[in-house]
Amino acid sequence: MPINGSTTTPTTAVEVPRGLAGVVVTETRLGDVRGYEGFYHYRQYSAVELARTRGFEDVWHLMFHGELPDAGQRSAFAARTARLRRLPDEVRAALPAIARAGALSGPLSGLRTALSLFGAAKGFRPVYDLDEDRRREDALAASAVVPTLLTALYRLGQGLDPVEPREDLSYAANYLYMLTGSEPDPVRARAIEQYLISTIDHGFNASTFTARVITSTGADVAACLVGAVGALSGPLHGGAPSRALDTLDAIGTPDRIDGWIRERVLAGDRIMGFGHPVYRTEDPRSRMLRGIAQQFGGGLVEFAVEVERQVEAILAELKPGRELHTNVEFYAGVVMELCGLPREMFTPTFAAARAVGWGANILEQAQDSKIIRPAARYAGPAPGVPVPPVS
Amino acid sequence: MPINGSTTTPTTAVEVPRGLAGVVVTETRLGDVRGYEGFYHYRQYSAVELARTRGFEDVWHLMFHGELPDAGQRSAFAARTARLRRLPDEVRAALPAIARAGALSGPLSGLRTALSLFGAAKGFRPVYDLDEDRRREDALAASAVVPTLLTALYRLGQGLDPVEPREDLSYAANYLYMLTGSEPDPVRARAIEQYLISTIDHGFNASTFTARVITSTGADVAACLVGAVGALSGPLHGGAPSRALDTLDAIGTPDRIDGWIRERVLAGDRIMGFGHPVYRTEDPRSRMLRGIAQQFGGGLVEFAVEVERQVEAILAELKPGRELHTNVEFYAGVVMELCGLPREMFTPTFAAARAVGWGANILEQAQDSKIIRPAARYAGPAPGVPVPPVS
Repeated sequence: MPINGSTTTPTTAVEVPRGLAGVVVTETRLGDVRGYEGFYHYRQYSAVELARTRGFEDVWHLMFHGELPDAGQRSAFAARTARLRRLPDEVRAALPAIARAGALSGPLSGLRTALSLFGAAKGFRPVYDLDEDRRREDALAASAVVPTLLTALYRLGQGLDPVEPREDLSYAANYLYMLTGSEPDPVRARAIEQYLISTIDHGFNASTFTARVITSTGADVAACLVGAVGALSGPLHGGAPSRALDTLDAIGTPDRIDGWIRERVLAGDRIMGFGHPVYRTEDPRSRMLRGIAQQFGGGLVEFAVEVERQVEAILAELKPGRELHTNVEFYAGVVMELCGLPREMFTPTFAAARAVGWGANILEQAQDSKIIRPAARYAGPAPGVPVPPVS
Repeated sequence: MPINGSTTTPTTAVEVPRGLAGVVVTETRLGDVRGYEGFYHYRQYSAVELARTRGFEDVWHLMFHGELPDAGQRSAFAARTARLRRLPDEVRAALPAIARAGALSGPLSGLRTALSLFGAAKGFRPVYDLDEDRRREDALAASAVVPTLLTALYRLGQGLDPVEPREDLSYAANYLYMLTGSEPDPVRARAIEQYLISTIDHGFNASTFTARVITSTGADVAACLVGAVGALSGPLHGGAPSRALDTLDAIGTPDRIDGWIRERVLAGDRIMGFGHPVYRTEDPRSRMLRGIAQQFGGGLVEFAVEVERQVEAILAELKPGRELHTNVEFYAGVVMELCGLPREMFTPTFAAARAVGWGANILEQAQDSKIIRPAARYAGPAPGVPVPPVS
């Protein structure tokens, strides 16, 4: 760092597209999305292939340590993260109050508060004061505890006691176990695990960017994650798989699909679960999740596939030239419904997986010592007007 | 919004300076900093002139409503914000737990948790779901309650009972009252008020930017503020007036100034309280706060003035050509010390004032419907490597 920051040369205003669209703010080795190829990757591997072939802990290790674990690393990492699931007493004690307050504002605001409290209780220090191992420890602790916080807050909201985490279950199985109180069947646990893996990261979205801006000030890991949770809670961020399922409910029956969809499209409404700002082809997550859903089969899956077929045909007819396909929300909602997740836990489940991606982004950003601090252009009345006397 | 986001044209990567330095991310009518002129303003008025001539509530009104209040607006606004100082019961009940957890991590992490809980308890909704009046109500409520949260957490940490806010006192006087339990003398209350006014906003810093990024997703006001508090807690953000006072303590006596400072400057260390990334002249806040300190007089003030004189001379000698002057931290620390604020409350006091600036930025950003979402460049190994079999 320059002494006293004073060697910074005066910067001229740099004009860029609105919302910083396309503006390269950093380099990353964590992954990327190739919208025109319908492909996204974590480090050098296809994310979907990872979801098909690996466990959640393997991919978490890949994101945090830069490589897939070997057998010894796998068991050590699984044991280590499993131990981190347990809440500090002072956080556990505060959860009923957080759950009561969250009843009005939804589960993400509860997670925001609980994670903030967790970071304070653990005494997280500014990332720039820590070496890389210690930073990774904080990021591991915070991401490991998210499922415990979310399921405890959910159960408290339902008038149920939280279920203590089990160390002998995988991340995904333990998540479902803490939610329901009973050990999940392996097929459902694996389906949720694949969804969770596919959701860990996805390019440079607004919550990931938020986490990195806060990291760039040197703040502690909890401050970064709490900001990211806040950004994720914004309706423009996306990542609300329950909305697509609500659409299926609203349509109701196969005979109503055509009329329902045409009316919305002609009114200019957005059809939830369709379209993505990046993908111009099928969303690779959607394809994978449809396959998982079809393994379960049943009326909901058949209906979803029929809605997808008809919506794509109608959009191709009414909005020719646009490539509008199902996005991750569409079949993610179906898969989570099939696995017995309550609808209000769909977005929190997304957040649990994404906390691992945020953690990896925080660790990467912390290696850069440059604060992210853009500029604004003053566009108000010319300054220097004398302050009028108090009236 | 485009239907399903799919009209977004593919963006080419836009190359910009590191850390987005100088990149214009938005227009603002809230104010600006003119580093070469040693001048900053809130809307069309000099911020320092506002601090000299107006009360905190007047400037708060200016930032939130776009104009200084007339007599009727002043009393209505003061009454309205005074009523908002009181905590909801569920937040008050959770503060002891937050204070206990915060003992390890400092007051900003306590504020982060408490504000998050407050937003949840108030049922804050996404800003894009609200009209402007309702958004302003949320921003007013959140910024009005910050002093109550901060002082209650501080007192709980000291083993004292929180002091309930009083509606008959000004923002600044009530802040000192809640901190100490006794009504402050008017000179001290006015000195702190001037400091608070001068700190409400200061260009497009990292915490303000964080608040605006989160706002741009449409998240609720608490999510935005909590992210900003997190960014402010980062050591690179600045705004830690206690550090400069610690420097005065470390130097100790006037005869040690020259040796102490030379040693640090020659070692390349930063001298806390000196230098600013934007100002190339005296920091206008520093000038104003020095004047306030000199009205109090006494040994600390004389010592601070002497340190300033010698440091500037030494820096001019050893770092010729750089314009290194005291920044806001230097005399802010002195003024807060003179007014009896405990040192650990210096940064929180800064945060209380800045919460009003963040609130104004959130309200302004919420009028824009474009998400702030830049890009990253993937710089890792070429993707598409087959996932190795599980070992």
